[in-house]
Amino acid sequence: MDGGQNFRIDPDRLWNSLHEMAQIGPGVAGGNNRQTLTEEDAEGRALFQSWCEAAGLSMGVDTMGNMFATRAGEDPEALPVYMGSHLDTQPTGGKYDGVLGVLGGLEAIRTMNDLGVKTKHPIVLTNWTNEEGTRFAPAMLASGVFAGKHSQDWAYDRVDAEGRRFGDELKRIGWVGDEEVGARKMHAMFELHIEQGPILEAKEKDVGVVTHGQGLRWIECTVTGKESHTGSTPMSMRKNAGRGLALITELVHEIAMKNQPNAVGAIGHIDVYPNSRNIIPGKVVFTVDMRTHLLDKLNGMVAELMERAPKLCEEIDVSFEAEIVGQFDPPAFDEGCVAAVREAAEELGYSHMDIVSGAGHDACWINDLAPTAMIMCPCVDGLSHNEAEDISKEWAQAGTDVLLHAVLNTAEVVE
Amino acid sequence: MDGGQNFRIDPDRLWNSLHEMAQIGPGVAGGNNRQTLTEEDAEGRALFQSWCEAAGLSMGVDTMGNMFATRAGEDPEALPVYMGSHLDTQPTGGKYDGVLGVLGGLEAIRTMNDLGVKTKHPIVLTNWTNEEGTRFAPAMLASGVFAGKHSQDWAYDRVDAEGRRFGDELKRIGWVGDEEVGARKMHAMFELHIEQGPILEAKEKDVGVVTHGQGLRWIECTVTGKESHTGSTPMSMRKNAGRGLALITELVHEIAMKNQPNAVGAIGHIDVYPNSRNIIPGKVVFTVDMRTHLLDKLNGMVAELMERAPKLCEEIDVSFEAEIVGQFDPPAFDEGCVAAVREAAEELGYSHMDIVSGAGHDACWINDLAPTAMIMCPCVDGLSHNEAEDISKEWAQAGTDVLLHAVLNTAEVVE
Repeated sequence: MDGGQNFRIDPDRLWNSLHEMAQIGPGVAGGNNRQTLTEEDAEGRALFQSWCEAAGLSMGVDTMGNMFATRAGEDPEALPVYMGSHLDTQPTGGKYDGVLGVLGGLEAIRTMNDLGVKTKHPIVLTNWTNEEGTRFAPAMLASGVFAGKHSQDWAYDRVDAEGRRFGDELKRIGWVGDEEVGARKMHAMFELHIEQGPILEAKEKDVGVVTHGQGLRWIECTVTGKESHTGSTPMSMRKNAGRGLALITELVHEIAMKNQPNAVGAIGHIDVYPNSRNIIPGKVVFTVDMRTHLLDKLNGMVAELMERAPKLCEEIDVSFEAEIVGQFDPPAFDEGCVAAVREAAEELGYSHMDIVSGAGHDACWINDLAPTAMIMCPCVDGLSHNEAEDISKEWAQAGTDVLLHAVLNTAEVVE
Repeated sequence: MDGGQNFRIDPDRLWNSLHEMAQIGPGVAGGNNRQTLTEEDAEGRALFQSWCEAAGLSMGVDTMGNMFATRAGEDPEALPVYMGSHLDTQPTGGKYDGVLGVLGGLEAIRTMNDLGVKTKHPIVLTNWTNEEGTRFAPAMLASGVFAGKHSQDWAYDRVDAEGRRFGDELKRIGWVGDEEVGARKMHAMFELHIEQGPILEAKEKDVGVVTHGQGLRWIECTVTGKESHTGSTPMSMRKNAGRGLALITELVHEIAMKNQPNAVGAIGHIDVYPNSRNIIPGKVVFTVDMRTHLLDKLNGMVAELMERAPKLCEEIDVSFEAEIVGQFDPPAFDEGCVAAVREAAEELGYSHMDIVSGAGHDACWINDLAPTAMIMCPCVDGLSHNEAEDISKEWAQAGTDVLLHAVLNTAEVVE
């Protein structure tokens, strides 16, 4: 049986909780600055814990500070169904990125409690530590350790801009738990998250059913020419590294366009040397970010870049070097979990569409361990990692209703 | 009469003086850091003054710290013939940029003294204050005040990176003179300078006869798109300001190539916002530097940029704004002075070619006041504003021999 088409979450209670959490670590422009392992993070965790306790959940914390709040199931042998996301934010982040997935999960549990629903499988609500990765790179650090992508020792040794270690800061804020990280087994995992892109709003859909994550390659390119005076170096004798950047910018765009749909590419980070008005750039270092949801296509895009970029540079007498500095193969989410999300949206009467997640999420790591899916909530203008990030209460309700039903269907309602 | 084909300077004495001066304010990599109005500048000035006194010259200093060392002429009514350049350097500058023009002038006077040459016109050797403009922008500051381009009050109020005023620093090092700046009248002015470009070396010429300076326009461009997540923003919904930079980089190159010879263009300074690997640039601010030696051509180049850049940006859904933040109309040097340089090179048997100066020089300002010309000395690999800047003793001799003869011919040898 499913949870019943009439089960709906309380949108006002959800909205109030989102905005009460947003008062912790307020930003400078209406958003939030609640970076991982700060006093504000600790305060947010404590508030979340108090809410979990009030909802009758029992809290476990692992050695990476990941929080697991359990609602007991009826079958002591059944593995839990997980849901959750992260409460940490960017330095100038929004109120919903991550937070909706945690507090939407809490609202789903509060609704189950209100209705006296019992499930065969336990349900566990998670707050993953340091999803953002801004203070301690990389992103999705603690779910990555949980999934065996990084060792805990390596994670503990990450340092922030002031040289403080992740391990020391986790201890300082009092959130080193006693559970071994990654020891938990999962029946399934669902993550509700805002889209961080403009598609759902543009297509006027209430809910995104995430079928794949995008795989990613970060290719750090160095174009080397010859630094020389703009006025006194004739055009024919120049080795202008800035032109290498220009040609590769357009090449990356062309490759992404050739691989539509669901392929993207751009250059976001550029360092020009010496970066002076009257000196021809002698060196430009920049990172190409290419993503798509199919591994072969992703590798093909990178191969085309690696083949054509050196030729373009050779034609203008500059040299090209490249190194892959970030990579993440595209996850395909579990067909059963994806179907549970799609069916929940359908039964609840929410408009929906299949979508590929363009950003990395904790669910992308967990997908390697257990059947996983994601639910996406539209966001205004696709804006995220920005204090102006916004969603509507109706969108929050739709996504959380779908989360509730997908989880209940997977955890098997017994009463 | 000219100075006679057998008058030659002493290359070893010149070379020794250049290298003695280079010991003041040594750089970190074999060059010099003798920035304007520092202790090192003061020390360099004192050494130069002592050499001038030993050569029998009388020193005048104006209220901008410009130094004028006079060798008397025979006709008390005749205006002086000036020569000189600057002793200040970039923070990581070379040993010859500017210095060759001052100490070459000193060597020319020492040679006149050795030979007992007398001239109708007095000859004045100048060290212009703050040609480089690195510590106190803009470049050619004191010759600019001399030529009425800036007021002295404005120049005194320029501040360095630590907030120290030019006027205060000039006083602190003890080089505020009592002459009114710009009061001197000139019969003619000659500046010997290293090329700071690669043409003379590539063409195997001993001497460059500078016919024009380049005019310059600095156009600060702002391309505004929309900052958004590289992964989750579909290609069709992007407003990638980085592509605007790419298209305009190539447009600037195309315009410069269409206007050959003696036209250049490039983008040297680029600021990308927010400059993050996974965020599509929402804004890129960069400065186009365009130069050529003919005013109409220069204005045409800028007009083409201003017409085509907004259209290119519109096609990719980003906006374009531009502002001219620096401009300098192309100087044409005096035909008589240029001929004096060319004839001196010819008579002395040095290979020579006409050339356009790509960089700004004190002579470009003085050209508005009096008949002026420049002589260029080749430099290795066109490298300048760099500690590795280098010239050969033979090149230094050729340029200084030509300076000596051009000045003597203009000042009219009487005995």
